[in-house]
Amino acid sequence: MLYVKTPQEVLALIQNEFSPVAEPEIVALSAAMGRVLAEDIAASEYVPDFDRSTVDGFAVRAGDTFGCTDAIPAILPLQSTVLMGEGADYPLNPGECVAVPTGGAVPQGADSVVMLEYTEAYGDGTIGISKPAAPGMNLIFRGDDVYPGKVILQKGRVLSSADIGALAAIGRVQIPVVKKLTVGVISTGDELVPPEARPGPGQVRDVNSPMLEAMLTAFGCAVINYGIVIDDEALLSETVKRALWECDAVLLSGGSSVGVKDAACRIIESLGQLLLHGIAIKPGKPTILGKAGAKPLVGLPGHPVAAYFITKLFVLPLLGRLSGRDMTAYTVTAKVTESISANHGRAQYHCCRLTRKDGALYAQPIRGKSGLITTLAGADGYFCIDRDCEGLPQGAEVQVTTTSGV
Amino acid sequence: MLYVKTPQEVLALIQNEFSPVAEPEIVALSAAMGRVLAEDIAASEYVPDFDRSTVDGFAVRAGDTFGCTDAIPAILPLQSTVLMGEGADYPLNPGECVAVPTGGAVPQGADSVVMLEYTEAYGDGTIGISKPAAPGMNLIFRGDDVYPGKVILQKGRVLSSADIGALAAIGRVQIPVVKKLTVGVISTGDELVPPEARPGPGQVRDVNSPMLEAMLTAFGCAVINYGIVIDDEALLSETVKRALWECDAVLLSGGSSVGVKDAACRIIESLGQLLLHGIAIKPGKPTILGKAGAKPLVGLPGHPVAAYFITKLFVLPLLGRLSGRDMTAYTVTAKVTESISANHGRAQYHCCRLTRKDGALYAQPIRGKSGLITTLAGADGYFCIDRDCEGLPQGAEVQVTTTSGV
Repeated sequence: MLYVKTPQEVLALIQNEFSPVAEPEIVALSAAMGRVLAEDIAASEYVPDFDRSTVDGFAVRAGDTFGCTDAIPAILPLQSTVLMGEGADYPLNPGECVAVPTGGAVPQGADSVVMLEYTEAYGDGTIGISKPAAPGMNLIFRGDDVYPGKVILQKGRVLSSADIGALAAIGRVQIPVVKKLTVGVISTGDELVPPEARPGPGQVRDVNSPMLEAMLTAFGCAVINYGIVIDDEALLSETVKRALWECDAVLLSGGSSVGVKDAACRIIESLGQLLLHGIAIKPGKPTILGKAGAKPLVGLPGHPVAAYFITKLFVLPLLGRLSGRDMTAYTVTAKVTESISANHGRAQYHCCRLTRKDGALYAQPIRGKSGLITTLAGADGYFCIDRDCEGLPQGAEVQVTTTSGV
Repeated sequence: MLYVKTPQEVLALIQNEFSPVAEPEIVALSAAMGRVLAEDIAASEYVPDFDRSTVDGFAVRAGDTFGCTDAIPAILPLQSTVLMGEGADYPLNPGECVAVPTGGAVPQGADSVVMLEYTEAYGDGTIGISKPAAPGMNLIFRGDDVYPGKVILQKGRVLSSADIGALAAIGRVQIPVVKKLTVGVISTGDELVPPEARPGPGQVRDVNSPMLEAMLTAFGCAVINYGIVIDDEALLSETVKRALWECDAVLLSGGSSVGVKDAACRIIESLGQLLLHGIAIKPGKPTILGKAGAKPLVGLPGHPVAAYFITKLFVLPLLGRLSGRDMTAYTVTAKVTESISANHGRAQYHCCRLTRKDGALYAQPIRGKSGLITTLAGADGYFCIDRDCEGLPQGAEVQVTTTSGV
């Protein structure tokens, strides 16, 4: 029995009905930014591979400096000077010191480095040290950063620039990532014309195709845009079949009138299994989800704002599920700048602008009817009013999901 | 007089010393996602260009339905049926109704649409209406979304998928964006080997080049990687000169030992003007900033974690300034999972993992010495302890900048 589901039920349905399907592939480190890791990454060596100074100074045995002061420095013969990028393959003699640059290797036996500022070269081959060292001071020991077998990045992670740096540090330049999912986008509706066309009487431009293509591409998918298909069930069915053949997932957008919605349901049922017919949120109620084999087929609302929210809230998590991608996301807390009424019984989403004033963050809802794309333009994020909430007073705190970049 | 500056002073210096220099260019709508708008975008037409129904139903004059009920419906002759994608270029006769699909045009004179659910077709050419309409109900009027001259997106904005949708809606498919900045990245240090090499004694892999390349590319720059240059002042000076010729900004990374830092200063002074020598933050103090003509030349610390923070906190805002880019960013509030001590006098940055538990968000600091790249790996964001703060107790709230995607 299909009925209108809550957002939580839809997300649970996605987890239960779909599994990670994306295959792994190897890419170069320089192409790995933003990709999803296909396996845990463990180090196979020590980083650094030698004891390393973090300052310019003199490597010593700390005990040789105990008790020294400005007035009574410890005077240590300079045994040697370590050059940058070269090893220090000799032990430090007790009672002596070795000059080391920042990042330079420290000889065996040295347990600390005294900063240049606390030393004086007497010109006779000895160094005066005016501040005692503690063992471990100004040193990174071999393997402090990484040791063989240590997992540094987990499967499913979307690689950031810091992660790219960590991979470089351990010498991983061939990175196992999840293959990009290919997503097909189909717009349907006799009233639609392409964005570059001037709409005639009763016509509107196709907003959903370019918007979805931009969002899915930024999310890391390859997109095949099948363009605008007129409201003809046989033609639409053929296009959906071809898209299911060529893609990992298919989004059918439009069909906001009852006839087309019914056609979309019939197409899904003829090709696979209908899982969902309607979500209790506003905007976005008339959403359809089915699967043909392991491939999801989503019927999105035609209204651009509704299509936007449904894609953000459910389609991206669905594609994340297919990729085995970590979908953790964070929200910022802000105060609403005006009171908002809400429909009891449906979670209600609002786009907003964010502004900071006297250190506090404010969310200004962008008003508009659900078909109006300019409620999205210039939005910094969105927040939700729960289904069991009848509205928010001015100044109430909301959790805003920011949308820059996607 | 150059002295160590606070982060606020450095950001002010960037605003004062540099100006937007990037040229505009035109790109197709499908290539505009993530780009920076070069000018305000105003609509040149009405969207929608006709009065439009938001439901399947019957367009009426609201007055003709006043007082109707289930028991005593208003009975209106059906004048005509509007088809999707066609105009309704006739006036609605008083006392009659017109069938319209969702998104369909509504004839002149109609001021509301009654939903299908509240109507019954009697089969004799008349429609029974059981719920009165209010003027404006279930209608989007011409220009409700956009009217000619309305600015929908402002110069400097980084285009999101919602913005792409808005541009499609108004028929803008040639988008004026700011040309990508070209940034040169140079690593210097005799101890550095490329990530694919196995370091010999005293050597380490070059982490900064691939990390910076990934971060700058994700930020929307073109990157020229000049590779690793050995610590030779003449050679380094030649490479910097070539990079300044080929790029809009140059990052010189490494040179963590005193000698190389001095060389970097001399190179900047020989090619232009030294603006800054040292920032009061940890990690990242040994940072140099200069300009040659209008082009910034940044000397980054060699330690990868320090180079990471300096790039995030100062280089990206600097590149944003050169592009005229809106750099508004948001933080999430989280509670630290353990107490942290801090050095009085320097703002101190910590990478952290974010976890959610019982609805609250927690920031777990990732411990490590500043040269250790794995304090970055797997980080979800970072927070700052102010220079006049001596530490944070467990459970204290911090503002975390999340780092996924950059």
